[in-house]
Amino acid sequence: MEVIYLDNAATTRPDAAATEKARAFLEDDFYNPSALYREGFAVHKQLESARRAVLNCLAPGGGYDLVFTASGSEADNQVLFSAGQRGNVVISGGEHAAVYNAARELERRGVQLRIAKLRPDGGADAEDLLSLVDGQTSLVSVIHVNNETGAVNDVLSLARAVKKINARALFHSDGVQAFGKIPFSLGAPIDFYTISSHKIGGVRGVAGLAFRKGAPLHPLIFGGGQENGLRSGTENMFAVMHFQAVCEAAAERLAENMRRVRSLNALVRERLDRGLFTVLSAEDASPYILSVSAPGLRGEVLMHMADDAGLIVGTGSACSSKSKASRVILACGAPDAVAEGVLRISFSAKSTEEEAARAAEILNRCGKELAERMHSSSCKK
Amino acid sequence: MEVIYLDNAATTRPDAAATEKARAFLEDDFYNPSALYREGFAVHKQLESARRAVLNCLAPGGGYDLVFTASGSEADNQVLFSAGQRGNVVISGGEHAAVYNAARELERRGVQLRIAKLRPDGGADAEDLLSLVDGQTSLVSVIHVNNETGAVNDVLSLARAVKKINARALFHSDGVQAFGKIPFSLGAPIDFYTISSHKIGGVRGVAGLAFRKGAPLHPLIFGGGQENGLRSGTENMFAVMHFQAVCEAAAERLAENMRRVRSLNALVRERLDRGLFTVLSAEDASPYILSVSAPGLRGEVLMHMADDAGLIVGTGSACSSKSKASRVILACGAPDAVAEGVLRISFSAKSTEEEAARAAEILNRCGKELAERMHSSSCKK
Repeated sequence: MEVIYLDNAATTRPDAAATEKARAFLEDDFYNPSALYREGFAVHKQLESARRAVLNCLAPGGGYDLVFTASGSEADNQVLFSAGQRGNVVISGGEHAAVYNAARELERRGVQLRIAKLRPDGGADAEDLLSLVDGQTSLVSVIHVNNETGAVNDVLSLARAVKKINARALFHSDGVQAFGKIPFSLGAPIDFYTISSHKIGGVRGVAGLAFRKGAPLHPLIFGGGQENGLRSGTENMFAVMHFQAVCEAAAERLAENMRRVRSLNALVRERLDRGLFTVLSAEDASPYILSVSAPGLRGEVLMHMADDAGLIVGTGSACSSKSKASRVILACGAPDAVAEGVLRISFSAKSTEEEAARAAEILNRCGKELAERMHSSSCKK
Repeated sequence: MEVIYLDNAATTRPDAAATEKARAFLEDDFYNPSALYREGFAVHKQLESARRAVLNCLAPGGGYDLVFTASGSEADNQVLFSAGQRGNVVISGGEHAAVYNAARELERRGVQLRIAKLRPDGGADAEDLLSLVDGQTSLVSVIHVNNETGAVNDVLSLARAVKKINARALFHSDGVQAFGKIPFSLGAPIDFYTISSHKIGGVRGVAGLAFRKGAPLHPLIFGGGQENGLRSGTENMFAVMHFQAVCEAAAERLAENMRRVRSLNALVRERLDRGLFTVLSAEDASPYILSVSAPGLRGEVLMHMADDAGLIVGTGSACSSKSKASRVILACGAPDAVAEGVLRISFSAKSTEEEAARAAEILNRCGKELAERMHSSSCKK
């Protein structure tokens, strides 16, 4: 029996067709794109064409450029340390650890950090966020799709509202869980936007930081001056070409994938035993992420039981899996019993209806078994 | 006719056997090593075992730990920005752009930067370097094998001498052109050492920063806390497992490879037309890098002619190929005519005698043709 993998918000299985397309760059086209001979130059042309192709999926209206980084975390860090060096920095309580912990580091370096409240669904409380922005704000960073609950922030409107308060404040959004999944075109009020490859079938080792042409951006990594001086290090062409392939595939089938994933999400919501499970994700969340909780049960134990039964789901963000209850779920105002019972079910464009149906079945069975086990052990006391 | 590739100091062709070994991590073993379910944990074990294997090739005596980064440049930057934040920082004039430009950035941030002279062969002038170290020195960084001339710095002795002057100064060496190529075991006076995968048949997207256990090291990239909190971002398992494979292969055949490459290097030195070419690399340089110059001719033009004839060589460092004459070659004291005529011939463990012989022949032919062309055009004037 094949394992059902529904932790796609942590990482996705690399797309085999994209691997095939990019394979030449692991073999005969291995040349260094910074080299000046014909072969290097040819690879460099492919790099620039990949950059345009990725930008075309993200910001078809133009006005943006893109730096290829090695990870979404690196892209987030580059923005925070470049644009958030003075005055105050405003983030939402729902930021990914890469933004959150880079902001905490800025705070240690003397920048004032202001963290906006979350709504119960994990979205940023817009009113609270805007109340924190003032004339001294250098940077505002709001995640586009929350990686734990799937809550979608209207980052275009937020950016517009921020600029009304302070036209000089820069606006960044971590779009790692949005890009290639939900319909979105990057537009003028947003200065910086992070995307990643391995969340949409790409390989690890490449991500991107899109920036509005003219937005001030400094390197995080200095050296040979690759990426137009904005990110040094030999370009990872295999990963870049793989990224291009999965971006184009995602863009082409975005609406169709979304429709399908929405129906899988609805199916799991519908079939989960509501005597055991509470759904945390709002109806209008990204369908790719479904956060549920079995209050009173430990999410981690449930996750292991499901794993034994052939279903892989997450417990909050894999990236912060060392800590216990999720900072973000707690910031949504969830009581401890709910926060400790959280499971994150996350789909990919390749998830199937059969997988969704079996996932609900396995979770119901495991939840019931765990609840009974706990009940009988508490009876024995 | 197969193209002869002798620009291996820029990047190497990924080793096909290592790609085969690591392939599972692009396919079925794609799980996130930070995930807490069995499959994630199994991948995490592989990550830790790869870390030990790489360390075992570099520091078999123990005492060191390793952070996997995405590139040698990232590793260099992490050290510079972590250890070089106060007092003065001492580097040699032969540093790779990743160290040199990170140090320049530190200088812009108020740290005093002291740059030691080079010997004519590109090695650091030890006496000059040590004269720059004092009680305020926070970090000394000296490249192990110079990436343009192959000059080998005795970094163990230099580190020892630095610590005699200031026991609190930290010592870093960029070993990207040394690791897996020349015999070396990382030892106590060195605090930090950078290695890279794609210079020894690995893929891009992974490199490493070895650090003495107990040496103070801060993250450059904050986030989910991967790599023991020292480098956040989802671990690039395919690249890591590939790295392990090429490290082990390189370590196993180090002496044999070195002997063979030494003979290729000697063959090219011997056959190059000394009426046209001057050899810049010293006899005791790393045999993997042979820097030569055709004084009075333009290295770039020669490189293109050789390329047309089926031979790929470099002109100085590919990583700084946007600038004209090499900063490092000029720092060796070479006159402009020599600096502008530089070609870098760099071998891999897989280069063959036939390739070396044909390379010398092609360079001699192109050099002669270019010299004649220039002579006849100057006659016409």
